[in-house]
Amino acid sequence: MAQTNKRDVNLLDPITSTLVSDLRQAIDDQDRDRLIQLLEPIHQADIADLLEQIDPGLRHSAIELWGQDVDGEVLSELVEPVQAEVMAQLEPRQLAATLQNLESDDLVDLIEDLDADVREAILNTLDEANRAAVEQSLRYPKNSAGRLMQREIVMLPAHWNVGEAIDHMRDSKDLPEDFYHLILTDPKAQLKGMVALGRLMASNRMTQLTEITDDDCRFVRVTESQQNVAYTFNQYHLISAPVVDDHDRVAGMITIDDAMAVLDEEAEEDILRLAGVGDESLSERVSEVAVQRFPWLIVNLATAVLASMVIDQFSQTIETLVALAVLMPIVASMGGNAGTQSLTVAVRALATRDLTRSNAFRVIRRETFVGLFNGVVFATISGIIGLIWFDTLILGFVMGLAMIITMTAAAIAGILIPITFHRIRIDPALASGVFLTTVTDCIGFLAFLGLATMILL
Amino acid sequence: MAQTNKRDVNLLDPITSTLVSDLRQAIDDQDRDRLIQLLEPIHQADIADLLEQIDPGLRHSAIELWGQDVDGEVLSELVEPVQAEVMAQLEPRQLAATLQNLESDDLVDLIEDLDADVREAILNTLDEANRAAVEQSLRYPKNSAGRLMQREIVMLPAHWNVGEAIDHMRDSKDLPEDFYHLILTDPKAQLKGMVALGRLMASNRMTQLTEITDDDCRFVRVTESQQNVAYTFNQYHLISAPVVDDHDRVAGMITIDDAMAVLDEEAEEDILRLAGVGDESLSERVSEVAVQRFPWLIVNLATAVLASMVIDQFSQTIETLVALAVLMPIVASMGGNAGTQSLTVAVRALATRDLTRSNAFRVIRRETFVGLFNGVVFATISGIIGLIWFDTLILGFVMGLAMIITMTAAAIAGILIPITFHRIRIDPALASGVFLTTVTDCIGFLAFLGLATMILL
Repeated sequence: MAQTNKRDVNLLDPITSTLVSDLRQAIDDQDRDRLIQLLEPIHQADIADLLEQIDPGLRHSAIELWGQDVDGEVLSELVEPVQAEVMAQLEPRQLAATLQNLESDDLVDLIEDLDADVREAILNTLDEANRAAVEQSLRYPKNSAGRLMQREIVMLPAHWNVGEAIDHMRDSKDLPEDFYHLILTDPKAQLKGMVALGRLMASNRMTQLTEITDDDCRFVRVTESQQNVAYTFNQYHLISAPVVDDHDRVAGMITIDDAMAVLDEEAEEDILRLAGVGDESLSERVSEVAVQRFPWLIVNLATAVLASMVIDQFSQTIETLVALAVLMPIVASMGGNAGTQSLTVAVRALATRDLTRSNAFRVIRRETFVGLFNGVVFATISGIIGLIWFDTLILGFVMGLAMIITMTAAAIAGILIPITFHRIRIDPALASGVFLTTVTDCIGFLAFLGLATMILL
Repeated sequence: MAQTNKRDVNLLDPITSTLVSDLRQAIDDQDRDRLIQLLEPIHQADIADLLEQIDPGLRHSAIELWGQDVDGEVLSELVEPVQAEVMAQLEPRQLAATLQNLESDDLVDLIEDLDADVREAILNTLDEANRAAVEQSLRYPKNSAGRLMQREIVMLPAHWNVGEAIDHMRDSKDLPEDFYHLILTDPKAQLKGMVALGRLMASNRMTQLTEITDDDCRFVRVTESQQNVAYTFNQYHLISAPVVDDHDRVAGMITIDDAMAVLDEEAEEDILRLAGVGDESLSERVSEVAVQRFPWLIVNLATAVLASMVIDQFSQTIETLVALAVLMPIVASMGGNAGTQSLTVAVRALATRDLTRSNAFRVIRRETFVGLFNGVVFATISGIIGLIWFDTLILGFVMGLAMIITMTAAAIAGILIPITFHRIRIDPALASGVFLTTVTDCIGFLAFLGLATMILL
């Protein structure tokens, strides 16, 4: 009987502090067998997490000791900077041994960002067929379906019946590790349909495969963007999708786990970009991180200076009534927050395709009214604050009026800016925030100080 | 031959303006057949999107006309507010017809938020077995694996061989629509392992099922949180996971598409919460949205007032040197942005479990140095700005110093706040932002105006 390790996923944290200290001990002792014994029961994805979380020095020693037994799956689970670091540390011979058993899509993912000469060295260690497959994939554009797909698929002639299919699979030596659909093709390798394994199981041996194909066979082209692929899997609950090349021939297949990884990355990217952070990982060094965060901060400095220039226009007013300096950040801050709310909803709705041409107008109108509504509510509240604090009715009135203007403008900017970027094909998550801050700060200060100058002086 | 609709997913937008206007026409004409004919070629998920995107009046007429033919799958694809609206519009008899063919997990998802009496009415329309299954699922906590799982599974005795399994499936009338694994149990229905269909296909009829089980069979308990389930699927690239009840008996199964939906929701929730937006949808009304966004804005107002109180302490200093009022928002804004960068990275790293006890100290140290590093860089830049703008060296110096203090404090707060919330089991995405803003604004104004008072006056 094959050994089945049933694991309760409740035991979620395989990386215990005991494990880390045992590992450290094994490395100190240069005890390779102990290291392998410690890592053996742990899933490759968890080993990758472990390697990311320990400090770089310990990681280096661990890889050194592990040597050619480093698992290719572990490598492919690592985040990019750590992956590059480990691959650079391994000798070509060790690296070749490590990458030996990876599926073509994982291999492509691993080597696509390497320097040409390192990549060449790795490709040279692969067998002929594998090498050709990987090289073909690398010819497709980055982030395309062609890079994401696996070439290990089960492709059968469309005229076969269930019995022939089952016999063929029983005789095959190299079935893919995981597959859920058979792909049917004609003699020219053109896609004819897809049969779910469950449906195949439930059918009689004499049933023609064409009688039990999925009603709805969604395929993608090699050049399709991974983003669209992920959207399609999520929207239509697909498990596998055949990938066809420029001549409509089946070139590979994408499975849901790969699509899930892309979807996850996309959401992650949106979150980080909205906060002005690039694709950084926790394993990067101070200098790398500081440099990556620099561009957004410098842009923010520019917008902040712009807002200050607006304030500067009213320095005489402020000198006359210093309470304005005290209250003005409130107006700008409320505008910024109301705008960010609209903006975030819009960015996500664009990403998930819930915001389209057919409802854009209605959503813009809605956001405007939400801004106006909350503007009036907060005008009242902050007007009262201004009145109580500085004991002048008119100051409260100015603040309230400025609040309505700023919050409404913020809501409108929060929805229009991302829609505009989306139309001109710039990622709204990336660029919208800066523009929004500029609008809300400048309008906030201008409205408040401008009204004050007109009314109070 | 069964009809196979091959669809190029490149044709991504099935909701064309022609379709919408044809639909409007069909509704105006009260032409039910035309409506059904228009919707027939469209995937249920796309019909749901269409219903969400058209205006509420048209949606109401569409559902009215569609009547009892409303597809249960469409209903289950709708976002919650629209779903509730449509379900309220349908008569009990129509609703029962609509829900008839749904799988148990979709049904549970649809009715879990309904009022008890409406829910009861719907349950009464189900057949005995289905009703018992749904009621059982509803007994599990919200957002638990028990609610997410489907009860339609293929469960076989562990002592069977491949031939017996295939014959059994061929004879079964009600196999689940999609399944990728067979679940093996002992006579007490306790989990013995899982066999992938692909592996089954490749094996001889005489092979014992126990010989071809997955090496690694991760199962979940009915009470496990959906968040943990989604993490597990993503981490270990699972396709299906058996769910066991309190007596270790197999109760159902979760498949990757359900896990993918949960993962997607979690990321979405994080993004929206970071921006101070609740679980809102584009289909909600102005008043609903405004009310949902109100709490965050009121909290933000409180923190802004707090920051203003800090400024108020220095009103005399500002009266003496109004340039301080012009420049102070720059310091606070830079602190806010640097802090948000750290915060977002930390919130996501906690959500994806990349930030753990084993690397928390290193990450905190890293963020501190990044803050300090960028603080020094921007101190220099903004010091120069202050110098040039107002032509006093000392003002530039004060601004630079305040910038270093604020940006370093912002980076430290940006990492410590979410870690603290995570430890005390409050969602860091929800609460961290407000605290961070308070810290960066107050420290920014205090450092700049305080230093100015000490040094300049």
